Amino acid sequence: MKKKKRSKTVAVIHGPNLNLLGAREPEIYGRTTLRDVDAAIRRLCDELDCKVSIEQHNAEGDMIDAIHKAAARGSGIVINPGAYTHYSYALRDALAAVSVPKVEAHLSNTHAREGFRRRSVIAPVVDGTVGGFGVNSYLLAVRAVVALLDEIRA
Amino acid sequence: MKKKKRSKTVAVIHGPNLNLLGAREPEIYGRTTLRDVDAAIRRLCDELDCKVSIEQHNAEGDMIDAIHKAAARGSGIVINPGAYTHYSYALRDALAAVSVPKVEAHLSNTHAREGFRRRSVIAPVVDGTVGGFGVNSYLLAVRAVVALLDEIRA
Amino acid sequence: MKKKKRSKTVAVIHGPNLNLLGAREPEIYGRTTLRDVDAAIRRLCDELDCKVSIEQHNAEGDMIDAIHKAAARGSGIVINPGAYTHYSYALRDALAAVSVPKVEAHLSNTHAREGFRRRSVIAPVVDGTVGGFGVNSYLLAVRAVVALLDEIRA
Amino acid sequence: MKKKKRSKTVAVIHGPNLNLLGAREPEIYGRTTLRDVDAAIRRLCDELDCKVSIEQHNAEGDMIDAIHKAAARGSGIVINPGAYTHYSYALRDALAAVSVPKVEAHLSNTHAREGFRRRSVIAPVVDGTVGGFGVNSYLLAVRAVVALLDEIRA
Amino acid sequence: MKKKKRSKTVAVIHGPNLNLLGAREPEIYGRTTLRDVDAAIRRLCDELDCKVSIEQHNAEGDMIDAIHKAAARGSGIVINPGAYTHYSYALRDALAAVSVPKVEAHLSNTHAREGFRRRSVIAPVVDGTVGGFGVNSYLLAVRAVVALLDEIRA
Amino acid sequence: MKKKKRSKTVAVIHGPNLNLLGAREPEIYGRTTLRDVDAAIRRLCDELDCKVSIEQHNAEGDMIDAIHKAAARGSGIVINPGAYTHYSYALRDALAAVSVPKVEAHLSNTHAREGFRRRSVIAPVVDGTVGGFGVNSYLLAVRAVVALLDEIRA
Amino acid sequence: MKKKKRSKTVAVIHGPNLNLLGAREPEIYGRTTLRDVDAAIRRLCDELDCKVSIEQHNAEGDMIDAIHKAAARGSGIVINPGAYTHYSYALRDALAAVSVPKVEAHLSNTHAREGFRRRSVIAPVVDGTVGGFGVNSYLLAVRAVVALLDEIRA
Amino acid sequence: MKKKKRSKTVAVIHGPNLNLLGAREPEIYGRTTLRDVDAAIRRLCDELDCKVSIEQHNAEGDMIDAIHKAAARGSGIVINPGAYTHYSYALRDALAAVSVPKVEAHLSNTHAREGFRRRSVIAPVVDGTVGGFGVNSYLLAVRAVVALLDEIRA
Amino acid sequence: MKKKKRSKTVAVIHGPNLNLLGAREPEIYGRTTLRDVDAAIRRLCDELDCKVSIEQHNAEGDMIDAIHKAAARGSGIVINPGAYTHYSYALRDALAAVSVPKVEAHLSNTHAREGFRRRSVIAPVVDGTVGGFGVNSYLLAVRAVVALLDEIRA
Amino acid sequence: MKKKKRSKTVAVIHGPNLNLLGAREPEIYGRTTLRDVDAAIRRLCDELDCKVSIEQHNAEGDMIDAIHKAAARGSGIVINPGAYTHYSYALRDALAAVSVPKVEAHLSNTHAREGFRRRSVIAPVVDGTVGGFGVNSYLLAVRAVVALLDEIRA
Amino acid sequence: MKKKKRSKTVAVIHGPNLNLLGAREPEIYGRTTLRDVDAAIRRLCDELDCKVSIEQHNAEGDMIDAIHKAAARGSGIVINPGAYTHYSYALRDALAAVSVPKVEAHLSNTHAREGFRRRSVIAPVVDGTVGGFGVNSYLLAVRAVVALLDEIRA
Amino acid sequence: MKKKKRSKTVAVIHGPNLNLLGAREPEIYGRTTLRDVDAAIRRLCDELDCKVSIEQHNAEGDMIDAIHKAAARGSGIVINPGAYTHYSYALRDALAAVSVPKVEAHLSNTHAREGFRRRSVIAPVVDGTVGGFGVNSYLLAVRAVVALLDEIRA
Repeated sequence: MKKKKRSKTVAVIHGPNLNLLGAREPEIYGRTTLRDVDAAIRRLCDELDCKVSIEQHNAEGDMIDAIHKAAARGSGIVINPGAYTHYSYALRDALAAVSVPKVEAHLSNTHAREGFRRRSVIAPVVDGTVGGFGVNSYLLAVRAVVALLDEIRA
Repeated sequence: MKKKKRSKTVAVIHGPNLNLLGAREPEIYGRTTLRDVDAAIRRLCDELDCKVSIEQHNAEGDMIDAIHKAAARGSGIVINPGAYTHYSYALRDALAAVSVPKVEAHLSNTHAREGFRRRSVIAPVVDGTVGGFGVNSYLLAVRAVVALLDEIRA
Repeated sequence: MKKKKRSKTVAVIHGPNLNLLGAREPEIYGRTTLRDVDAAIRRLCDELDCKVSIEQHNAEGDMIDAIHKAAARGSGIVINPGAYTHYSYALRDALAAVSVPKVEAHLSNTHAREGFRRRSVIAPVVDGTVGGFGVNSYLLAVRAVVALLDEIRA
Repeated sequence: MKKKKRSKTVAVIHGPNLNLLGAREPEIYGRTTLRDVDAAIRRLCDELDCKVSIEQHNAEGDMIDAIHKAAARGSGIVINPGAYTHYSYALRDALAAVSVPKVEAHLSNTHAREGFRRRSVIAPVVDGTVGGFGVNSYLLAVRAVVALLDEIRA
Repeated sequence: MKKKKRSKTVAVIHGPNLNLLGAREPEIYGRTTLRDVDAAIRRLCDELDCKVSIEQHNAEGDMIDAIHKAAARGSGIVINPGAYTHYSYALRDALAAVSVPKVEAHLSNTHAREGFRRRSVIAPVVDGTVGGFGVNSYLLAVRAVVALLDEIRA
Repeated sequence: MKKKKRSKTVAVIHGPNLNLLGAREPEIYGRTTLRDVDAAIRRLCDELDCKVSIEQHNAEGDMIDAIHKAAARGSGIVINPGAYTHYSYALRDALAAVSVPKVEAHLSNTHAREGFRRRSVIAPVVDGTVGGFGVNSYLLAVRAVVALLDEIRA
Repeated sequence: MKKKKRSKTVAVIHGPNLNLLGAREPEIYGRTTLRDVDAAIRRLCDELDCKVSIEQHNAEGDMIDAIHKAAARGSGIVINPGAYTHYSYALRDALAAVSVPKVEAHLSNTHAREGFRRRSVIAPVVDGTVGGFGVNSYLLAVRAVVALLDEIRA
Repeated sequence: MKKKKRSKTVAVIHGPNLNLLGAREPEIYGRTTLRDVDAAIRRLCDELDCKVSIEQHNAEGDMIDAIHKAAARGSGIVINPGAYTHYSYALRDALAAVSVPKVEAHLSNTHAREGFRRRSVIAPVVDGTVGGFGVNSYLLAVRAVVALLDEIRA
Repeated sequence: MKKKKRSKTVAVIHGPNLNLLGAREPEIYGRTTLRDVDAAIRRLCDELDCKVSIEQHNAEGDMIDAIHKAAARGSGIVINPGAYTHYSYALRDALAAVSVPKVEAHLSNTHAREGFRRRSVIAPVVDGTVGGFGVNSYLLAVRAVVALLDEIRA
Repeated sequence: MKKKKRSKTVAVIHGPNLNLLGAREPEIYGRTTLRDVDAAIRRLCDELDCKVSIEQHNAEGDMIDAIHKAAARGSGIVINPGAYTHYSYALRDALAAVSVPKVEAHLSNTHAREGFRRRSVIAPVVDGTVGGFGVNSYLLAVRAVVALLDEIRA
Repeated sequence: MKKKKRSKTVAVIHGPNLNLLGAREPEIYGRTTLRDVDAAIRRLCDELDCKVSIEQHNAEGDMIDAIHKAAARGSGIVINPGAYTHYSYALRDALAAVSVPKVEAHLSNTHAREGFRRRSVIAPVVDGTVGGFGVNSYLLAVRAVVALLDEIRA
Repeated sequence: MKKKKRSKTVAVIHGPNLNLLGAREPEIYGRTTLRDVDAAIRRLCDELDCKVSIEQHNAEGDMIDAIHKAAARGSGIVINPGAYTHYSYALRDALAAVSVPKVEAHLSNTHAREGFRRRSVIAPVVDGTVGGFGVNSYLLAVRAVVALLDEIRA
């Protein structure tokens, strides 16, 4: 009886402008496209035997909806809030309101990027954060969420 | 002939994440659902003999549209901007642009909630604010708007 | 035996300079005098079947005494701290120290008044706040306190 | 062979609440409607022999989409971010990510408007800014974008 | 019939700790006592043919009462708010509420006193300020108030 | 000849709301009443062979008067300014103006109390401070004042 | 009778260090000299049929004089205050004091220049601002001033 | 022998833009011209039997020179630094460097003028300040300087 | 020839007070001891076929030495700077000075810990950060460093 | 049976530069040497029947070690963190991590020392603070720790 | 042929109020006059075989002109900006615009002078700074400029 | 009799990470090693006929010890506090406590280095500072210390 397989699910939510990945400021973000990122995430999820859904939204309201839905189906959440990181208290409330495992991931090291002095308003309400490792940030975040799901589930 | 009754109308606009009410952080917000809140509002409006429309939006843009529409039909506005309270200058502009009675309502006492130090950017452009009384915040706000409408209408 | 009536009591405490109401900056506060305000409060309390005491004090120490006494007799408190709103940590401590229902009321929308950037130091320790509706601020605050008293008493 | 005409295109993107222009706070913004503004823009573009598309959005996400699309078709951009000027880092990222000529325009002199102390988060990522001249702000911004396009194109 | 003389009146209100003048930190304030100051004030008022009342209060509430009373009898006001200068918004409100000529006077140059960085919250609501000249600050302030009274009265 | 005994005197001045001690927020301040505190102080003063006077005032002005009087009779001062600690520059001036030994005492560790970020404006003008030890704060402060008196007197 | 021609006049006032234009930090400001800029301005003024005077001053006082004189002869003003933009309240007062059309122009986008966080103290008192377009900033500013003059004159 | 008369001298130094007095923002500063002010000053100096020199400068450097020269000839100084009040540390140094009596005078109450939050950097180095009384500010300041000169001289 | 194995090395550097792990504030950090953490790290390194050295230091200077040595032997660095995170610019300089892969790891989510508002001064000079996952933070950080080493080495 | 005597122990930890006491800035700290201080502490401990260990360290890391060791043997702690008071979050963490009684002592009144505006980062994690009484600060702190130990032990 | 001697030149530019040196606040700056300083500078330049020009200006504009001229003739610059150090962005721009060696010198240690908290706006654009050594500050600065010139020239 | 030679001694104390000089961020600090720097210092000291000791420490505590020892033997001090410049109040206290000549030296112009906004906490307690001239900063600082020693010694 090997059912119950892949009962863990992760929702990856990409924030604003990430659809331009690979085109946008490649000297900072490299030439990897969002499609490449998503493929790598799916490969890891296969390896870790967990289901994954991936969405990208430019609108704050759509990201809030995505969080509500992911939590409603019990998915862990990996979220890259993009620029909303620095001011979206509405996103923060959405994440604070749901009790599934949730991890903030950033491609670049936001602390090192010149000119952004505002801190993350999201970080205080997630379980943890990973940032600075390009695609690997997502992969490490997925590993972290899966570990948190296992703890809960076991 | 005493028709013309219920010519007063109030638009209640719930902001982001309020659809989760009752589920979200019940130790702060209690177990009352948004449905319960809306029922209480409708009962009071019946009692006060005024029409009411109620909407909930997670998106800033949708809330702006709702304000524009409410004002276009002459409704007084009761708005709970949720997290947008603290940074949505666009919502603020929308409210500043309309001349109907408008009241900001909050379920909890936002001044007492730990960690939120940013003040309301909405408060300076509404007629008044009510906060801290749970469902009663909405009911008192409705009373306030109706009183303001009566002044205008009389 | 229908005694026990009017067992609910509310103490309304007007802060500094409110004795000048009607004379002081009428373009902001209107021509209603404190006497008018008090009459309206008494009418509502009659209607809500609750006893009311009303005091006005210019001195911070006298307001603290009034809070202590109101709490000692189990009254709910409606307080308009006037300018003390912005700096009286002693008033704040007095309110924090008592466990009766307590509501902060303001005639004008203090958020909109030009030049006052200091926030309320009182707001974090009261149950809720009402502001911006002139005399109605007091009436809505009385309603709020009575509702809180009923909850406690019921 | 006179083809290739009007190969230059400009995208004018109006931000939140500008649909109310003419109605909203006319003592600040005058009685000119957005329709009047758009007509003037079209006349100038005709004169400058360049194509123009004009959109108005209340939602931040829709404005981001409009920027992505304009850039994808090589249009120069004239944007009036309205209240988003002061906090939308997502809009800022969208503009930073595209390499077409881009100019920020404001009807009024935002520096002079009382109460707005937050500076433009958009300004650092556009080529230049024009503000304070009413409809003329848009017309000067269009001239500026066309000049930048000519430089690029020539 | 040369009655009606001395119809101008000035109320001089000394703030907290000024009763210690001459004893308190003489290296800053000199050895002149409050009694000496008052005598000099009375001499000048005699010379300027105006009535004068002089009070000293340590309590904020008493100073507010004094302001209310002075204004009620049409007196111009010379006030040295002492330490209340830096935080008494209640005193500020009292002065803002009355329309008689009012001048803030300080014995020492408060700008130069080391360690006091908080500015005067009183200054924005009085007609003018005089400071740094010891007893002369009061005498110049009396001259200023009398000139303002003459303007009004003439 | 064993006269001259008990020539040392200490004035203990309790600030606003301390009359509620034992009732107020017992989870922070415990169940000891002000009466208990005063008894312990008197016992220690007996032991240290020094006279003691103890007062409690809610009003800033009354505390200033108490300081003036204590200094006039040469008493050392132990003062718990309560909430005035954080803003009463008038109290500060009163203490700065007198040259008797003076010590600030606090029942709780004000540095650790959540939400109070404002520092003591009193501390810079007293000889020293003791805080965090409940009743013992007063007793240690009395010991400190007595030691300072002995130095002066010896 | 076609006299009255060129009755419109514009005064262009270049601020400190602009005499070095073309030499100074060419990677930011390009190789265009001030002479080139002035020639372009004169050509446009010819085209727009308006008289122009152009001055450059390193001294704040000389710029104030230039503003006074331009206003006295009814000229519109295009001013590039250079570094004075960030702190010269005297220049600001000079511009606030005159009622001719006045526009602030900057060669580069001052918002984007790293290290300059101080905002323009000039901007709040001019009609509008243009910045970021190199020589074109001046030309657009001249157009703006001429439009404002026409409004006044017509 | 009654020579030695008028040995006291006062230098009145008017700061930037005061040459426009009467023309500039008359709703704030009234219609009195600088010439009127100077005439009133001269009349008072005659009355007080002291010589007076009066200068007006738009340039910071010229004002510094004027201070140096006034001090070199032993004149007391009445200075209205205009906008330099808020930032000219060079003027401040010039005044700090000279030991003659020196008084800062302002026509309007700079504390009350909306938008100016920067305090006076001049005030800490002068003997005293007078502000808010229009022409009378100068006259009171002259009286104050003469009193200080008499003290020194006597 | 299977030599060259385990040529990758990682240096794990634990900062101040981590020797108390398991004992210190277990409600925040759990009961896992540093020994447990180190065992888990060693197991993962075995699995990833890389050598590991682990040190714990309370002294800033010793941590700097450890960084210098790790970099000298080409090790990647996983560092948990503990409280030094918030102020050790010396540690920051040590990390900025070395070019090996370097990752900051934190057991708890430092963004969520009440009372710590100071951001990481370390974060801007490391490749990336991982925080909030307890022991897993170290394991994910090791994975990240190994991936960075592979990139370099490959 | 008089065993169990002296089972109470106190660890006194002197911070950086205190080895220079008596030599360093004697106008602030007097001529008492650290040796004198230690002798007084030992005398009092004898009197209070408690063991004492005394250490002085210039290095932050050594002070952390000393705290760990004192707590491991159950000693109460009296600590004068010297300059580390103002920035050593590592010291703060060390004290927060141990549950023995702990008191911060300062020779001088740090609040009154000119130029130090940074508050104590240590104070929020100790039981209480004593400061301003020279050697007596240590003696009062020892009394306080002993009282806390007795409470625990009794 | 050993001509070409003294081809190195240094321009020393003294800022505002330095003409008063020796007279002004001698307890801070000593009794050395500017003439003495200049003589010492000339002696050193003779010794170092370099030409020197020395100017003193009270006006910001004149200092800018002096910088422009010095740079035009290839001189290294030693500048003591006096009070302009703290706010003259125009001076800063002038120095940033020229590429000759340039050093900021101060007689006193500006960091230690009480009351000046504003940092140098000049320091970021010069090669280096020397301060605190009286006349020696100039001499060390001359040595530094000469060394920089030699590097360039060699 | 030529003894007594070289009685002047200078202690050069290099701060954290300076052992990496030449390796660390050579684009900022160049390729000169600490050994090269020390050789140049020794050569100059020979020339100036003064003894020199040179130490480098990564630990704050070791630097404090070095300062104490240098002062104990009467050496002047040249210190490059490295990153401790920005926060080590313990180092500051160590320097404030000793009365030998003491100079702060920096290789680079710390004012110009991007990202470091915190000022020197060391500067206010040393005699003077030299920065921005690479190795020459040390050499000029040695000259400055020697001059100060000569003054003292002579």
